[in-house]
Amino acid sequence: MSSAIPEIPNGSVTSPRGFTAAAAHAGLKTDGTPDVALLVSSTSCATAGVFTKNALRAAPVVYDADLLSERPGRMRAVAMNARIANACTGADGLAAARAMAQAAEQAAGLPPRTALVLSTGVIGVPLPVAQIAEGLRTAAAGLTAEGGVDAARAIMTTDTRPKHHAVRFETPAGMITVGGIAKGAGMIHPDMATLLAVLTTDAVGEPALLQPVFRRVVDRTFNAISVDGDTSTNDTALLLANGAAGIDPARDGALARQFEDAVLAVARTLALAIVTDGEGASKLVEIQVVGAVSEASARDVGRAIARSTLVKTAIYGADPNWGRILAAAGAAGVALAVDRLTLEAAEDGEWLTLAAGGATAHPDAARARAIFQQKTIRLRIDLGLGRAEAVVWTCDLTPDYVRINADYTS
Amino acid sequence: MSSAIPEIPNGSVTSPRGFTAAAAHAGLKTDGTPDVALLVSSTSCATAGVFTKNALRAAPVVYDADLLSERPGRMRAVAMNARIANACTGADGLAAARAMAQAAEQAAGLPPRTALVLSTGVIGVPLPVAQIAEGLRTAAAGLTAEGGVDAARAIMTTDTRPKHHAVRFETPAGMITVGGIAKGAGMIHPDMATLLAVLTTDAVGEPALLQPVFRRVVDRTFNAISVDGDTSTNDTALLLANGAAGIDPARDGALARQFEDAVLAVARTLALAIVTDGEGASKLVEIQVVGAVSEASARDVGRAIARSTLVKTAIYGADPNWGRILAAAGAAGVALAVDRLTLEAAEDGEWLTLAAGGATAHPDAARARAIFQQKTIRLRIDLGLGRAEAVVWTCDLTPDYVRINADYTS
Repeated sequence: MSSAIPEIPNGSVTSPRGFTAAAAHAGLKTDGTPDVALLVSSTSCATAGVFTKNALRAAPVVYDADLLSERPGRMRAVAMNARIANACTGADGLAAARAMAQAAEQAAGLPPRTALVLSTGVIGVPLPVAQIAEGLRTAAAGLTAEGGVDAARAIMTTDTRPKHHAVRFETPAGMITVGGIAKGAGMIHPDMATLLAVLTTDAVGEPALLQPVFRRVVDRTFNAISVDGDTSTNDTALLLANGAAGIDPARDGALARQFEDAVLAVARTLALAIVTDGEGASKLVEIQVVGAVSEASARDVGRAIARSTLVKTAIYGADPNWGRILAAAGAAGVALAVDRLTLEAAEDGEWLTLAAGGATAHPDAARARAIFQQKTIRLRIDLGLGRAEAVVWTCDLTPDYVRINADYTS
Repeated sequence: MSSAIPEIPNGSVTSPRGFTAAAAHAGLKTDGTPDVALLVSSTSCATAGVFTKNALRAAPVVYDADLLSERPGRMRAVAMNARIANACTGADGLAAARAMAQAAEQAAGLPPRTALVLSTGVIGVPLPVAQIAEGLRTAAAGLTAEGGVDAARAIMTTDTRPKHHAVRFETPAGMITVGGIAKGAGMIHPDMATLLAVLTTDAVGEPALLQPVFRRVVDRTFNAISVDGDTSTNDTALLLANGAAGIDPARDGALARQFEDAVLAVARTLALAIVTDGEGASKLVEIQVVGAVSEASARDVGRAIARSTLVKTAIYGADPNWGRILAAAGAAGVALAVDRLTLEAAEDGEWLTLAAGGATAHPDAARARAIFQQKTIRLRIDLGLGRAEAVVWTCDLTPDYVRINADYTS
């Protein structure tokens, strides 16, 4: 989980050169805190986007996917709001997403069709466009190169902490910075459930080259976390590259790998912050799946474990119930050979075998229980079938999760 | 949910002629209550079986599937135990399942390879065969035609109530009776998660004709319920037909339909009893999916809603959060047309439209809330795509569910 790439203290989307941001209160959050945010680049950005696979895509997702397919090299801004998702709002919703984008463009003095929009919150409620436009004007008047953290705070819903991160690395031609903000908490699941993430970089990018890089990164980070197994209508991850550093990482193989590692480091830190801040979560669970025939099947097994409510409640109860973990793996829809399975759990980097050959390993019960009492629990399941692997993260399922979601006003 | 087929008061697997059962304490449950059960038919039964799709099939599942593929017309008994699942127990586990079957055959004076076995409970613990064999001998000595309810009680784990049901209907050639017992509670999900169900009938059956009938029934009942979205290693549903009534329903189309309806009625009653008794459940939710292109896709949409923890917590909180229901439907992996979707909820048979055309329907908020405060909540989602439909049942997700599963000893 650690990265060799130097981290920027208090880093965010405004850490890379040429990006400014600000947040404002538009009257959506009842406590008067900022609920809209605006991120602006001083020049056009090459932009990659990964969107929800939910069949009911919210208006901002439809709007952004359409805009990016038309003008992936011309983006200048991202306008965001919390509290109202603008999902299941029909044709009016799509018009509202467009109006929100136009409001951002006008407020920041940008050309038409250069702003993307992100919304999160309650489904089925019309977006109050006039209020949001007013908020975006306030934000546009206050854009600064330190505003990224404020933007991260504005998009929080049931999140308890703003999520932001940035890294910077040297290249022979100068520095490249990658930053990001995200919101998550409930509904997080592989396939990008109610997750908003915006990453920025001052590297030079080409949309056609940026998209596969970002796709790989998202699969290994935002699509590898699960809070409650639900997927949402609004999930969006964006990567904007404005080229202010004047360095194109795609020119050189080693540099391209270094750049992808930096994007991965930022995305992974944000993804783990989301899981750790899962609704009601008290523990982080890292599930390594090794010995698979493909990375995709390894991830499927990890996801099946990560979304099992029986596993997640056992982990909340500090119960080393490895049978539930194997049963959840068995439900992944991946062919398994029972007699080749090994399940281990770690304490201080030492692995304890909980089950081997698909049968009881009679582990040291006291040590197993101590492992499951840790705040971060690392599991490793070896399928014994091949050489591919994947890592998936989740949190425990607690009574607080139920309370938060039973009380969330529709 | 009602059936026109007359129900037998306190009916169970021993309601059809020629079946006897008994339960005994074998020292597995710490409270001294019965934990093993034996069901015996006076003659050979044609038997249909539906087993878990979990890749890690428990030893009794492997044993039974193997036995049924060899001798589907020769079954005489079912031996059952609670507390220990005999799952993830390797080659020793399979030997233990075989020893348990042999113990049942010897205790009841039956030919070899005529007893099926069912186990439920904790995974990864060796089956105490000697104890269970002793319990089965005690049960065999006490077999009665009233013992079915005791058997239902013996296989309970976190169930709070025994589940049993039987119906009887007239035919021109005499009466046919269908009965059943089941256990469920946690881990219940489509694809048969930790669910044991044994159905019996005195109709004449042919294994090759019985199996497709039972497959259809299981898809519409045990595979249409969800408590927590988890699937298990041990799920098994059996239907034994001993022919004591001397009537073969397959001889006549109308009679065949009547027989399938009777099996469906018993299976549905048991399945609903399982959901209503879901771990910590306080509400039953019926989800009708209509207007689908196929029954399978209708069921997929229903299941996606039924397993959504966000939907289930909203229902616990009596929150008419229809956006979460649509978002869950959208995550089913089924192609949907947002503008054709309609979602309704019922109170006293009157339907209230919550969403139409994929957009806000601005329902009467007080009435919507009243609907979601009922103990049984009926939802209907019309996909507007075709004429196929399916019904799925689930329960709410409560803090009690988390407590029960955090405390269950592994």
